[in-house]
Amino acid sequence: MEKNITVIKGDGIGPEVVNEAIKVLDAVAKKYHHTFHYTDILMGGCSIDAYGVPLTDEAIATAQSGDAVLLGSIGGNTTTSPWYKLPPDHRPEAGLLKIRKALGLFANLRPAYLYPELAEACPLKESTSAKGFDMVIVRELTGGLYFGEHTTKEINGELVAHDNLVYSESEIRRIAKRGFEIAMKRRKKVTSVDKANVLDSSRLWRKVVSEVAQDYPEVEVENMLVDNAAMQLVKDPAQFDVVLTENMFGDILSDEASMVTGSIGMLASASLRADSFGMYEPSGGSAPDIAGKNIANPIAQILSAAMMLRYSFNMDEEADAIEAAIKQVIAEGYRTFDIYKEGNHKVSTSEMGDLIVNRL
Amino acid sequence: MEKNITVIKGDGIGPEVVNEAIKVLDAVAKKYHHTFHYTDILMGGCSIDAYGVPLTDEAIATAQSGDAVLLGSIGGNTTTSPWYKLPPDHRPEAGLLKIRKALGLFANLRPAYLYPELAEACPLKESTSAKGFDMVIVRELTGGLYFGEHTTKEINGELVAHDNLVYSESEIRRIAKRGFEIAMKRRKKVTSVDKANVLDSSRLWRKVVSEVAQDYPEVEVENMLVDNAAMQLVKDPAQFDVVLTENMFGDILSDEASMVTGSIGMLASASLRADSFGMYEPSGGSAPDIAGKNIANPIAQILSAAMMLRYSFNMDEEADAIEAAIKQVIAEGYRTFDIYKEGNHKVSTSEMGDLIVNRL
Ligand SMILES: CC(C)[C@H](C(=O)O)[C@@H](O)C(=O)O
Ligand SMILES: CC(C)[C@H](C(=O)O)[C@@H](O)C(=O)O
Repeated sequence: MEKNITVIKGDGIGPEVVNEAIKVLDAVAKKYHHTFHYTDILMGGCSIDAYGVPLTDEAIATAQSGDAVLLGSIGGNTTTSPWYKLPPDHRPEAGLLKIRKALGLFANLRPAYLYPELAEACPLKESTSAKGFDMVIVRELTGGLYFGEHTTKEINGELVAHDNLVYSESEIRRIAKRGFEIAMKRRKKVTSVDKANVLDSSRLWRKVVSEVAQDYPEVEVENMLVDNAAMQLVKDPAQFDVVLTENMFGDILSDEASMVTGSIGMLASASLRADSFGMYEPSGGSAPDIAGKNIANPIAQILSAAMMLRYSFNMDEEADAIEAAIKQVIAEGYRTFDIYKEGNHKVSTSEMGDLIVNRL
Repeated sequence: MEKNITVIKGDGIGPEVVNEAIKVLDAVAKKYHHTFHYTDILMGGCSIDAYGVPLTDEAIATAQSGDAVLLGSIGGNTTTSPWYKLPPDHRPEAGLLKIRKALGLFANLRPAYLYPELAEACPLKESTSAKGFDMVIVRELTGGLYFGEHTTKEINGELVAHDNLVYSESEIRRIAKRGFEIAMKRRKKVTSVDKANVLDSSRLWRKVVSEVAQDYPEVEVENMLVDNAAMQLVKDPAQFDVVLTENMFGDILSDEASMVTGSIGMLASASLRADSFGMYEPSGGSAPDIAGKNIANPIAQILSAAMMLRYSFNMDEEADAIEAAIKQVIAEGYRTFDIYKEGNHKVSTSEMGDLIVNRL
């Protein structure tokens, strides 16, 4: 097959880890007789430096014309970088919000699971980590507080800020369907997280989710308040299969869940729309402090590429091959510094990429 | 001194744990020659059963005329209780939101610390729990998404729900001041949590917090995004002293932090306004499944009473005495079932109350 991949290397460790993912994609292309065309666009700090804005309309058009987007990471040190002196809608993160909306990527999938070999890195007690866990957070990504109206006005001599949290039935329905469909391919359990005791949007969320649930009678559904969900992720992460939630709650809970795995450098994410188009990126950030040192863990980025093959290109066999190669390299004891423990072989970013290519 | 305490026993385990707190307050009154007058009001499910609403205006007036409120807990099983068939503003929790607003309790203080004797119950690894931690979440309680306009309307043939997140400079300033004042009496560090990369209200929050910070040059201030805060609470809770945040983020993070201690049955909270008036309650819920069995842990409730003595009545010595008695009982190995481990003495709710009175 021939596929057009839009590549956003971005800032921080983005370029170096994306290079490793491309190395792996090229090896896959060769082995399975595909052709991948890569088109680079800028987003985030590097785009600000080049064009004064975190994402140009031309870049969006390029992304729109391709088959999928492979994203590294964007943003820098928020206290020292000049990017953060700019008005909010000109900062690196504004590019990310803009591309999500422009491409209609309403479904953010963030798997969080414990790698048995890395269970030691899990911040939870052994009695919990020994049970293992494997969940996917399905987060609504183009609605809610993120995209409602934001205003700051002077009222009675002082500033008053408003942010509007908006959800329509159709917005909730499409993400709920996605959540249930994913659950059908997994352990058939959906935990829908809301704050229905306080928010109208959460009550609408609960209503629509329960309607959608009727089309999936095999799936066990549970409603959980967001404050309780934040507790349960720490207490007993094994109880979760699919966690379905709105944008802001998903932001908070998916980061909490990734940290609970202890190996955020090993977690990928996908942002999808209704068709096969998607954007794929690591769950971790741009880590400006370790950028350019060839020490960052490229595995999350390589897994993002595997997710792209699976979800956007329908190349399950190829994705399986990448995941198997990663498993093997980990089983053989190779580790970048973030997951290194005594007795392992410490390797650099590019060495890790080479090892994975080699085991393909 | 003579004080008027409004007592809300509430639902679930509320009545039985509040009874133990009153036992302890009576012992304190006797020993230190105070007179405490108790006036019961209904709130939550029991008020719905009696009056059809979760909080009557008469009950609010009673609370307003007293010196402080001691609250047990409210609410029941959300799937089986008839209270949850009512419209949202008639459910038990609506009473809680109403009393917070009516009494102007804008500052919610939720200490979360690891009891060295109960470190085993901490869900985190020993390498983390061994360091210990001791933080207080200072949560804004009468603004934000909780009290902005909530609407659900039909637009283009489908329901659309709106919730409005509103903060004014003065609302932020008064809670920020409270946070910094608390930090001055502690380890002099404030971590202000927001989502300034997305929300106008968070940007205003950050601006006002940095202004208030100038009046407290000794206090170290740090801004942290809420998604990162959710991660850091799991990764390294010892980094936090005072966590200052808005209503919804505070709801999520304070529950996460209590769970990280592993002993939610031992954590109290205070909801304060600018003067000495306050409402005091345990951090845990009404636990309807164990209600009426005389097995619930009354310590959080007794600590809430101690907080009331300290913050509302300026009775530091008396509060110290209660806290010391609790420490002693724990050191002696007495435990209710929730924190029981082999080798301890298991005791009932009322036995725990008696032991604490006895050690006073
Ligand atoms: C950078 C930021 C705007 C973004 C978000 O909050 O969505 C990030 O935290 C994420 O989760 O992808
Ligand atoms: C019961 C609910 C409305 C309340 C809140 O969200 O504030 C509770 O979770 C709390 O934290 O006190």
